[in-house]
Formats: sequence, structure tokens, C-alpha cells
Amino acid sequence: MKMDTREHKQVRVAADAMGGDYAPAEVVKGAVQAARNQGVEIILVGPEEWLRAELATHDAADLSLDIHHTDQFIVEGEHPAAALRKKPQTSVAVAARLVQEGRAEAAVSMGHTGASMIAAQWILGSMEGIDRPVGGGIPFALAPQTVIVDLGPNVDCSPRQFVQFAALGTAYARCLLGLDNPTVALLSIGSEEGKGNRQGQEAYQLLKKSGLNFIGNVEGWDLVSGQANVIVCDGFVGNILLKFGEGLSAVLARWLRERLAGLLPSTEVQRLTNELQEMMEIEKRIGGGALLGVKGVMVVGHGRSRASGVEKAIGQAKLAVESHLIETMEEELAKIQ
Amino acid sequence: MKMDTREHKQVRVAADAMGGDYAPAEVVKGAVQAARNQGVEIILVGPEEWLRAELATHDAADLSLDIHHTDQFIVEGEHPAAALRKKPQTSVAVAARLVQEGRAEAAVSMGHTGASMIAAQWILGSMEGIDRPVGGGIPFALAPQTVIVDLGPNVDCSPRQFVQFAALGTAYARCLLGLDNPTVALLSIGSEEGKGNRQGQEAYQLLKKSGLNFIGNVEGWDLVSGQANVIVCDGFVGNILLKFGEGLSAVLARWLRERLAGLLPSTEVQRLTNELQEMMEIEKRIGGGALLGVKGVMVVGHGRSRASGVEKAIGQAKLAVESHLIETMEEELAKIQ
Repeated sequence: MKMDTREHKQVRVAADAMGGDYAPAEVVKGAVQAARNQGVEIILVGPEEWLRAELATHDAADLSLDIHHTDQFIVEGEHPAAALRKKPQTSVAVAARLVQEGRAEAAVSMGHTGASMIAAQWILGSMEGIDRPVGGGIPFALAPQTVIVDLGPNVDCSPRQFVQFAALGTAYARCLLGLDNPTVALLSIGSEEGKGNRQGQEAYQLLKKSGLNFIGNVEGWDLVSGQANVIVCDGFVGNILLKFGEGLSAVLARWLRERLAGLLPSTEVQRLTNELQEMMEIEKRIGGGALLGVKGVMVVGHGRSRASGVEKAIGQAKLAVESHLIETMEEELAKIQ
Repeated sequence: MKMDTREHKQVRVAADAMGGDYAPAEVVKGAVQAARNQGVEIILVGPEEWLRAELATHDAADLSLDIHHTDQFIVEGEHPAAALRKKPQTSVAVAARLVQEGRAEAAVSMGHTGASMIAAQWILGSMEGIDRPVGGGIPFALAPQTVIVDLGPNVDCSPRQFVQFAALGTAYARCLLGLDNPTVALLSIGSEEGKGNRQGQEAYQLLKKSGLNFIGNVEGWDLVSGQANVIVCDGFVGNILLKFGEGLSAVLARWLRERLAGLLPSTEVQRLTNELQEMMEIEKRIGGGALLGVKGVMVVGHGRSRASGVEKAIGQAKLAVESHLIETMEEELAKIQ
């Protein structure tokens, strides 16, 4: 992990104060907590009066919390691309622009995910050869050293995209996990070469000669076995896996709560169910994930996040900046064949 | 559910005594239990002397347990298609042939899965329009009324195959869940029409006019939400989900065991971890699943199954016969547009 040790400048994060189901109150609260606990500087992006009123409810006078005014934001049900075209000063776009202009080092938004991706793509720009932002991260803390890419928007991927996912995942594992030479695997339905669908079989051949530390195919159970540091898959599969994990987390937590009720004290039951959910849901643990393949740090969190989720997402943004995620992704993309 | 009430003839099951990691001992033991507890007649297929010696270790004189001799079987590492070509009297093929000849009503094998599929396809034959056997079932007892199809071998599916999966899943839900008009959904990455990959978007259009009770797209979390009775997906996705569930089940059970140790009596801890695994793994609960789209009942169980898994798989075979699964699948396939 290449941490900046030369200078101790604080990381400056532009937070989309109008993103998420509990905006702006929970975003402001989470930002205040992050400023206090993590020593980051925050620029809250949103309607000034509203944010000032929210800030006034917190003890934040000694913290580095600025407001960058805009009164445009995305409302429930709006189509993200259309909204961003119609309202160029939309809060998430302004947050991205602050990064693009060098006035902040990272942007954080708790959704709308689609709008964040479009803002990142339009304003920060995609890296060389990348079509659209890539979703990657460690969705299951049960395998805390396994990055899965793409978790998101890229469906019907070309074999070439799988190699890009592998390079981006390698950068993520280097920076955020501190691994020197992360192993890369292809998600398939059998461990032997030649297993899988056409898309995967072609990707396999490209990955073999990519120069990455490719170890072959892995199967569904390896998503939580720790078998590989980076597992690449089509965003269609990744998105289904991510949401399946979320769904399972909810029903298993309910089951555990019901089954342990009466057997253990309720505080202990609550502790165990929380622990279960944190292992199964990326959002509960790290608040959100950095978009990969774009030329600036943009962390997108879950719309349902409360202040603690916002604080964690800001922490992820800080970590991405300090570990030079952007530069490392560009290096890894430049290396692949 | 159309149960046979006219005649009370016992269901006769041909069990591949040489299939599975613990064959023949655990298969014979499970077959004896099934004969006793479920009132089925069993034909054990395998080397006569070996099976007779196994049977002698059980108290089974009063049960209907025949042996059908063959000394050919698949050994570890053999390629299933090649093995079946070279050894036509392979135990799993003989079991399928007993069904095809009407001497048994169902075949059961605890693997090799690939060999069972090929035997089913070659000997029982695929239904009209079906390329190869389809894997379907209820992998997650957390959603006990949700059948997922294809869980198995069909990858790179055509949109037309999704409609077949939907028809087969509908038959499964009618017969094995007793539902009159099962809802059918397409697994995707957004609930709106038009979301998903190209394959799914085309399948959506065909499903809409299929005549089935199609309710649109569902997402990953709906695999355990009970939102639909039948969820169709490409076998690539289905296989990954199935194995992901298995992997999660193992690591979550380990976590639960460790976390509850010392908090609860060990018998209670064991009960809870077993319960967790039974909710997450199809094999732990029902032993195995009937292959769909073939002209005869063939239940394939997990290779690692012990006697209780074998008994459950035989129970599934019995249920498939008594609920007229084969006829219902043919009816549903004939209805789709």
C-alpha cells in the first residue's frame, strides 16, 4: 500500500448532501462525524440555507466543513441521465466537478447510483479504453480479501472488458488491501479451462496472456472461500450476487433473531444479527464503494444509509485517495496486454 | 397436486448403488431406510455380490429390495460421456434403462451429475424441443415456494429456452408445491421491463406472450423473498447461485458455531447450525433434484450425501412419480407459445 507519508495534508471530500433516502439530515450528520473522527475536510454540496440549518444542530464549529451551494438535485423517480442534462448544477454533478477541478480529492454520494455513475463518467471521465464506470469491491466480509468486479452496470461484456475488470480489481486489491501481487480468477461453473459460457471461455484466453496473476476459473462457493483476491464476472452476474447477498442477509438475520430470542439476552441477539449483516452486506460495513475506471475518486453508497454509513463511505473515499487508487488503476490498465 | 388415489401401488425406484462418494454402503443404507420409512420398492443397481454383502448388514428381509446386477460403474476422474459410451452397462445407465423399460418408475443417482444427465438424455430422452436436461428445484428453503430453473447445465441459453425453463418450472411448482397457477419471473438486475442483458430482454418479450403467469423481472434479493414461484435464469447464473449458497452455508455455519460456543449448550448450537445449512443447501434438505425436461423421473443427488441424503433423494423420486411430474411437464411444454 503506497500511503502518502511525505505530507500530512488532510483529504478533502465533496459530499453530495442531497443524495440518499435520508438526505440531507443523515448526510450532514455523517459528514460531521467523519470530519471529527477521521480528520477529513468536507465540502457539503446542496442548498446553502438548508445545510446551514442542519449543521447548526451539530457541534461542528471547530471542524473543517464548508458548504458549496446548489439548489438543484435529483428527486425520486427522475431518470438520471435526463435529470443531469436538464440540471447541470445537480448536487452529485457539482460534487464530481469539485473533484475534476481539483478543489476536492474525492466525491461521495449515497445515490442515486445511476446518477453518480453518469456524473462520474461525464465529468471525471473514464480511463483509457473503459466504456463506463465499473463497480468493484468486497461485498462479502466473509471473504475479506476477495474483490469482485464488475458488481454493477456493465452487462453483455466483451472478453476484453473482463481483462480490464481484472486490472482494476488488481489495483483495488493493491491499494485497499495492501496486497503486492493479488491473484485473479474468472467466475465460472467449473474449475477446468474450457468450462463456462462462450463469453467466459474467450475471457479465459485473454486473461491467461494478460500479464496479471491469473489463477484460472473459480466457482460459486469461491466467492466466500478466499480462493482468489480478485474475481471477475459480468456485471449482470455481479449485480445479482450482490443483491442476493443483501436478500439473504435480511432473511438470515430475521431467522437468527427469531431463533435466538429467549435463548440469549436481547443485546447479545442484536450483536450477533448485526455481525451477520455486516459480513453479508458491503454497505453495512464500508458504507459504499469507489467507482473503478474513472479519473477521480467517486464513492457511491447505499441510498438507505444513515449517518454511520455516510461516515464509512467518506472513510472509503479517504482511503482511496491516500492509497493512490486512481494512479494505480491507470498503471494496471497500462500494463495489460 | 394430482395424487394417484385410484391405486395404491408402491412406487418402484431404481437406485444407482455405485453413485456418490460413499457408494455402495451409504446408498444401500439409505435405500433400506427409504424402503422401510416411505414404503417404496427398491431395485439396487450394481455388483450383486457386493450389494448382497452390504444388504446383509441391515435388517431388511421384510422389505422389497431387489438387486439388478451390473459390474460396470464410473470411477473417479472418468469423463462421463466417454465412460458411458465405453461401458453401456454402467450402473447409472442401467438404472435409467429400468425406467425407460417400465421396470421402475424412477431412477436415483448420487452422482456423477454429468453422467446422470447424459444417461437421462440418451436413455430416457429429452422432451419435445428440449436440448438437454434442465436443472431445477428449490435451492434455498428460505424461500420454500420458489423454484429456480435452470440450476444446471444449460449455458448460453436462447430466449426460447427461458420459456421452456418457465414451463418446466411451472410444472414443478404445480406438482411438487401443489400450486394451481404459479407465478413466473425472469431474474434480472432491475424490475422494469428493458432492464438486463440482451438475452434477458429478448426472453422477457417471449415470456410476456407465453401464456404463462409471467409477472416480469425480479432481482437478486427476490431469490429468497418469495416474490415469485418460478424464477428463470441461464444455467450459468443458476449454477453460480447454487454453489454460492453452498459456500455461504458452510462459512456461515462455521461462524455461527464459533460465535455461539460457550453461549449455548452444544446440542443447541448443533441444532441451529444444521437448521441454517438445511435452509441454504438443497441437498441437505431434499437430497437431490429431479432432472427436468426428460421423459422419465431421474433424481440426481449430491455426491457427498450419506444415507439420509439418499433416503431423501428417493423420497423426491417418489413424490415426482406420485404427483405426475413427467406428464405435467409435457402438458406445460405443449401449452407455451
